[in-house]
Amino acid sequence: MEYTAKSIADLLSGQVIGNPNEKVITISKIQEAKSGSLSFLANPAYENYLYSTSASVVLINKDSVPDKKVTPTLIVVDDAYKAFAILVDIYQKLRNIDRVGIEEIAFVSKSAILGNEVFIGSFSYVATNASIGDKVKIYPQVYIGENVQIGDNTIIYPGVKIYQDCIIGKNCIIHSGTVIGGDGFGFAPQKDGTFLKIHQIGNVIIEDDVEIGSNASIDRATLGATVIKKGVKLDNLIQIAHNVEIGENTVIAAQTGVAGSTKIGKNCLIGGQAGFVGHVKIANNTNVGAQAGVVKAVTKEKTTLLGSPAFELSKFHRSYSVFKNLPDFRNDIIELKNELEKLKQKL
Amino acid sequence: MEYTAKSIADLLSGQVIGNPNEKVITISKIQEAKSGSLSFLANPAYENYLYSTSASVVLINKDSVPDKKVTPTLIVVDDAYKAFAILVDIYQKLRNIDRVGIEEIAFVSKSAILGNEVFIGSFSYVATNASIGDKVKIYPQVYIGENVQIGDNTIIYPGVKIYQDCIIGKNCIIHSGTVIGGDGFGFAPQKDGTFLKIHQIGNVIIEDDVEIGSNASIDRATLGATVIKKGVKLDNLIQIAHNVEIGENTVIAAQTGVAGSTKIGKNCLIGGQAGFVGHVKIANNTNVGAQAGVVKAVTKEKTTLLGSPAFELSKFHRSYSVFKNLPDFRNDIIELKNELEKLKQKL
Amino acid sequence: MEYTAKSIADLLSGQVIGNPNEKVITISKIQEAKSGSLSFLANPAYENYLYSTSASVVLINKDSVPDKKVTPTLIVVDDAYKAFAILVDIYQKLRNIDRVGIEEIAFVSKSAILGNEVFIGSFSYVATNASIGDKVKIYPQVYIGENVQIGDNTIIYPGVKIYQDCIIGKNCIIHSGTVIGGDGFGFAPQKDGTFLKIHQIGNVIIEDDVEIGSNASIDRATLGATVIKKGVKLDNLIQIAHNVEIGENTVIAAQTGVAGSTKIGKNCLIGGQAGFVGHVKIANNTNVGAQAGVVKAVTKEKTTLLGSPAFELSKFHRSYSVFKNLPDFRNDIIELKNELEKLKQKL
Repeated sequence: MEYTAKSIADLLSGQVIGNPNEKVITISKIQEAKSGSLSFLANPAYENYLYSTSASVVLINKDSVPDKKVTPTLIVVDDAYKAFAILVDIYQKLRNIDRVGIEEIAFVSKSAILGNEVFIGSFSYVATNASIGDKVKIYPQVYIGENVQIGDNTIIYPGVKIYQDCIIGKNCIIHSGTVIGGDGFGFAPQKDGTFLKIHQIGNVIIEDDVEIGSNASIDRATLGATVIKKGVKLDNLIQIAHNVEIGENTVIAAQTGVAGSTKIGKNCLIGGQAGFVGHVKIANNTNVGAQAGVVKAVTKEKTTLLGSPAFELSKFHRSYSVFKNLPDFRNDIIELKNELEKLKQKL
Repeated sequence: MEYTAKSIADLLSGQVIGNPNEKVITISKIQEAKSGSLSFLANPAYENYLYSTSASVVLINKDSVPDKKVTPTLIVVDDAYKAFAILVDIYQKLRNIDRVGIEEIAFVSKSAILGNEVFIGSFSYVATNASIGDKVKIYPQVYIGENVQIGDNTIIYPGVKIYQDCIIGKNCIIHSGTVIGGDGFGFAPQKDGTFLKIHQIGNVIIEDDVEIGSNASIDRATLGATVIKKGVKLDNLIQIAHNVEIGENTVIAAQTGVAGSTKIGKNCLIGGQAGFVGHVKIANNTNVGAQAGVVKAVTKEKTTLLGSPAFELSKFHRSYSVFKNLPDFRNDIIELKNELEKLKQKL
Repeated sequence: MEYTAKSIADLLSGQVIGNPNEKVITISKIQEAKSGSLSFLANPAYENYLYSTSASVVLINKDSVPDKKVTPTLIVVDDAYKAFAILVDIYQKLRNIDRVGIEEIAFVSKSAILGNEVFIGSFSYVATNASIGDKVKIYPQVYIGENVQIGDNTIIYPGVKIYQDCIIGKNCIIHSGTVIGGDGFGFAPQKDGTFLKIHQIGNVIIEDDVEIGSNASIDRATLGATVIKKGVKLDNLIQIAHNVEIGENTVIAAQTGVAGSTKIGKNCLIGGQAGFVGHVKIANNTNVGAQAGVVKAVTKEKTTLLGSPAFELSKFHRSYSVFKNLPDFRNDIIELKNELEKLKQKL
């Protein structure tokens, strides 16, 4: 990727001050930019960086153009931040736009159905009866099991593994190393202390507009489906057990785990490293703090939880502030006992 | 997979009521079943679903056959739940039964020894001197390092990585993304603040009948072996450090971590996101709650632990119930002080 | 690998007592050694194992040679532990020394630049403009994205995924399943409850001498870089969010997570399953205990933290020791109240 200041200015209907042939090959923050970088100045607090930056080209607001001459070439626009966001969006789209076709050393079953403009990278495996929507990008080393369905425009990054029968919606993004549809963790204890595997014959259904980070594990249902609803965003290294349901537009931070059959509502915000016990229902708009352990149902919407086991956040903070001073309170109790004893003896 | 009600009834020695040619293509819960599903009715509490279900075929107990006509075709058996379990078992076996042979684009070293009826999927790599038992199924994109041994009937799902010299038993199941035999985390601190790698030249030994979930990490020993004993079940995203030993039939839930050289006994039940300090011994039949942090040895069998650091579960619950009311107790202490002061002045 | 006692003695300038043609094929602890093993005796406390071991060859200090005859062949050296360490080092190097060249079924872009003596395993993918240093070992099933740079002598184990534009230093080791450069977790909330993806166009920079365990996730920056400085050691299943910086020679144990934009200083020691809130700065030489939750900046060096939320370790321990006895203190308070009441009535 190599662009001139002029070509970018034309794209953004901006004006060039400086060398219109100045070339950029990457995008950086103004305070970190090196030669060849395109940066932007939107926040006046960063204005002094304009005089020290090594950026080759800087997007700048009309009313921020400096009187003095500066080293970088400037592109003057109405809203530098918005202009930058537009460029970033184009940049991202360009990354994937040329990814069409099946690379030479991929395996695609003859019974698989492929949409238009699909990309399938080398060393990826698409099993029998899989169905891949239009413009889906499957990077190298991905496994798509039997009967898997993937909706239009979804991006599957290198090394994702999707077991048989799972269904992925449209406009989803799944990052490397994530496993969808591994067996739920179900075993029946036997009299001799061993465990008998309970076959997990359900699947995973991921609805539209879901993004899942890297190295997450989403298990298939015992029977029925583990369901990730429309618009959910899951971070890296998350554990979703069998028969769990995550409601629309809920966001879960990294390393959180949800045990079997728990249903989390819509629009919840869940911090990192939190845990949910199995078989409970969590109301819509619940907020759960990092490292919290949710051990029972949440029935009231907009509840905010912290602690392990978790309870109402402001109450947790009050208890925890006393916890920090517990040695003092213990000493107070000892002293109170002594004083009371003295009083009793006086009477 | 497509079966008729009659073919299933014959298999189960059951009787068809309805259309013997009714076809099923999948298996579902009666309350979620769609057309084409086979379901079962074993629990009388679910009887009303018989009248509303869209299942095509329902397995039913002799004594539960309804008087009224129902939409689905029924198969009458002695024990509907057991009959269903038999079908699920067959269904699972059929999934793997046709997986025999080496797919075209796999790499198998000439020095590797393969048993009978082995399956090796595309893009899998079997290194020099690896030994693969009878009926082992190695899905695509698996890495089997030098000298690795895998016992009969073991299933290795897509993308598992097994480093050199590790030994896997018979009848094991290892899910996608799991890494077995990565280097233990051992470094010798140097005077200049840097760390020198301590080579990890041991291996991992996984005994028979072990199941390991997806994206787990089981490190090789520094010297000797990290050992997962017979019948152990490990969930997803679990960390097992170097030289750890997990006793027979112990079950560990997702995202738990066990630090180096700790030995966990037999028949333990460990919750999710728990942690174990290194170099301790945990007695047989220990139960550890979710998110607990076990920081010392457990010498007494049947101990139950919770909290971080963990102590006896019922004691933890008692302390935690006071913790929730700590602000009240702090106020009590303040009030006691005041009242005592008043009393002292009175005297 | 098969060596004779004599060939090893020659290498170490040691003397053989016993059969110079005794063969060894592996390396083991003296207490666990089987026939064919090379072991060492450095600690006098283990001397009695010399009489019971099945090791074929044992390295021994000059001053520890036994008077009696023993079964294993001995190699007498000045420092048995040091001699053993030298052998382990050679053993490790031999493992990789023959790994040179590109295996047949790998994909390497024509525009990729490869150094001397590079190894690239089967089913690995090296994308356009990637640059691979001298003696780099890329095991099978690795993904190296566009423009990725990898420094000399770095080892990338099977199945690692490195997204476009990331930079890896010299002498690094990255274990299987680790994902470098996945998108940071950034979404802008919209009025209708949905979230808009914020493109993550920065990269990850990993400096020299870094080791990263298996199944870790290190996200690319939104803009700029996520930076892992020289000499850092990261264990398995670690989460490093976008724009995080980890200082030189900091060591982090398994399953810890660091939220976005947090900067951890140099020479820190971080326990397992710890968590760090985003956007804070952690001073050099900070120690953080396992399962701690660091929720604010650490400004003073050599601080030691524990608890969730974390505070000074010794204070945490004092509070926690009271926590364990909280039911007793509650009873004390109740009793104090009663006694005080009695006193008041007396007056």
